[in-house]
Amino acid sequence: MKVSNNKLQNLNRAGRMIEQAVAQGAKMVILPEMFNCPYQQEFFPKFAESEANGETVQFLADTAREFDCYIVGGSIPERDGEKLYNTSFVVNREGHIIARHRKIHLFDVDIPGGISFKESAVLAAGNRITSFQTHFGRFGLVICYDIRFPELFRLLLADEVKLVIVPAAFNMTTGPAHWDVLFRARAIDNQVFMAGVSPARDLDSSYVAYGNSLMVDPYGDIIWQAEADETVGVVEIDFSLLEKTRQGLPLLKHRRLDLYQVSENGPGI
Amino acid sequence: MKVSNNKLQNLNRAGRMIEQAVAQGAKMVILPEMFNCPYQQEFFPKFAESEANGETVQFLADTAREFDCYIVGGSIPERDGEKLYNTSFVVNREGHIIARHRKIHLFDVDIPGGISFKESAVLAAGNRITSFQTHFGRFGLVICYDIRFPELFRLLLADEVKLVIVPAAFNMTTGPAHWDVLFRARAIDNQVFMAGVSPARDLDSSYVAYGNSLMVDPYGDIIWQAEADETVGVVEIDFSLLEKTRQGLPLLKHRRLDLYQVSENGPGI
Repeated sequence: MKVSNNKLQNLNRAGRMIEQAVAQGAKMVILPEMFNCPYQQEFFPKFAESEANGETVQFLADTAREFDCYIVGGSIPERDGEKLYNTSFVVNREGHIIARHRKIHLFDVDIPGGISFKESAVLAAGNRITSFQTHFGRFGLVICYDIRFPELFRLLLADEVKLVIVPAAFNMTTGPAHWDVLFRARAIDNQVFMAGVSPARDLDSSYVAYGNSLMVDPYGDIIWQAEADETVGVVEIDFSLLEKTRQGLPLLKHRRLDLYQVSENGPGI
Repeated sequence: MKVSNNKLQNLNRAGRMIEQAVAQGAKMVILPEMFNCPYQQEFFPKFAESEANGETVQFLADTAREFDCYIVGGSIPERDGEKLYNTSFVVNREGHIIARHRKIHLFDVDIPGGISFKESAVLAAGNRITSFQTHFGRFGLVICYDIRFPELFRLLLADEVKLVIVPAAFNMTTGPAHWDVLFRARAIDNQVFMAGVSPARDLDSSYVAYGNSLMVDPYGDIIWQAEADETVGVVEIDFSLLEKTRQGLPLLKHRRLDLYQVSENGPGI
C-alpha cells in the first residue's frame, strides 16, 4: 500500500485493502513496514503510539474482529516510556494481540551514491526473536533489515516455523541489488516460506520504497510477486511443500551440529 | 573444464588450462570439484589417491612450481587408510600444500523428478573448517554442498577471509534453482568475494554438471560468469571493495552478537 503523512488516511486505506483481501479469501493479512507513518525519522516521534492506548493497535484489533482474519500489522512507530521502537503487532481473529516484534537490527547505512539512513538516531532496538502460533502453524516475524542476519532464521527454525513474515521497506539502492536474493536465500537455506511486504513505491516521498512484495516457497521459487505499485495480492500456501522439499533435499538434517551451532544469548526484553 | 573418465587426460587438460590462465595473468588458478574423476560413486574408489603419494597431488605441486602460481586443486577422491574423502588440496607457488579441505557436508539427496545421489555410500565427511593464507590475504575453502550451510561462512569470517572458494558440481536440478542465488547470498551476507568453479556441462555423463562458474563481489554482484561449456576465465579482484562495501552497509558490525552467536564445536580431525 501507499503510505501518506496522514495517519488516519493510512488506517482507512489499510482497512479498505484488508476488506478486499478478505473478500478474495485471505485468512491472514500482512501490512507493510511503517504502514501508518512515512518512513522518515522526523515522523516517527509524531506518529508513535503505545500498545496500551494506540489508535493503530485498536484499529488492527477492530478490523481483525470485523473481518474474522489474522492481521500482521506491518510495523508502526511504538512508544514505550522514553523509547521508540519499530514494532509489528499481530492480532488474531478475536482481535487479541498474539505477537509483538520490535525490530532487532536498526538500519544505519550510508552507501556512497545511494541510500543514507540512521534509524538509531530516533529508534531503540528490540531484543527478542519472535514467533507466534496460528491455526495454520507457527510463523516467524522479523522486520526489514532483520532479514540480513541469517542467525535469526536458524533460531526461528528451533521454533518450527513454517513461514517467516517480513514487513519491510527496502529502497531503490538495496531493493534492486538484494531484495529478491535475500528472500530466496532464506527460503532455500531454511526450507520455509518467506513473505515480504513493502509499502508501494512513491517517487514523491523522501524515502522511496522498492515495493515488489513477494511470497517465496521453501525451494526458493517466487510464487507471487507485486510490482512497484499498490496492490492486494492473495496467495494460497500449500504447507505440505515444506515436508516435500525437506524430504528431497534434507538440508536441515544435514547440518553438522557436531561442528557448529547457532545459539541464543539469553532472552532479551 | 570438461572431465573424462581418464585420469591422465584430465590432468593434462587441467595443465593446459592452467598454462592458459597464467598466460592471461592469473596468479591463482581454481579447478572444479572432482576435476580428475567423473562425479560418479563407482569412480571414486578407482580414482582415489593418498596425499603422500598421489599423482594428482604431485601434478598440482609440479604445475604450481612450473607456472609460479597458486593452485586450488578443485577436489579429488582422496584415500586415507580405509576412508575416502572428497578433498581439495591447495598448493602455493613453491608447490607446497598449504591447505586441505575435506568436504564436510555430504550430498545425499533424492529430489522427485530431479537428481538422486548418495555421496555417503562411498565417502566419509571431513570435520574441519578450512582457510589459508596467501600473498593476497586469507581465503576460505569449502566444497559444493558445503555452501548450503550459512554457519560455515560465519565461522570463516572469524578468520577474516576476503574470498571464499567453492569448487562445486551443481546439477541440472539444483543448478538452475539455486546456484546463483546461493553464491550471491553468501557474498551479500558476509561481504566477501565468492568464487564458484564447476566442471563444464557434459550431456553424455551420468551426472550432468550445471557449469556457470562465477565470481561474485562483496555487494553480491556477479563480476564474471562462465556459461555451460569449458572456458578459462581470468578475473581481477579489487580487494578494496571489501572495505568500501562494509563501510556503506556495515552488516558485520550490526550483527547482534549479544542476542545470538555461531560457535564452532571444537576442532575436528
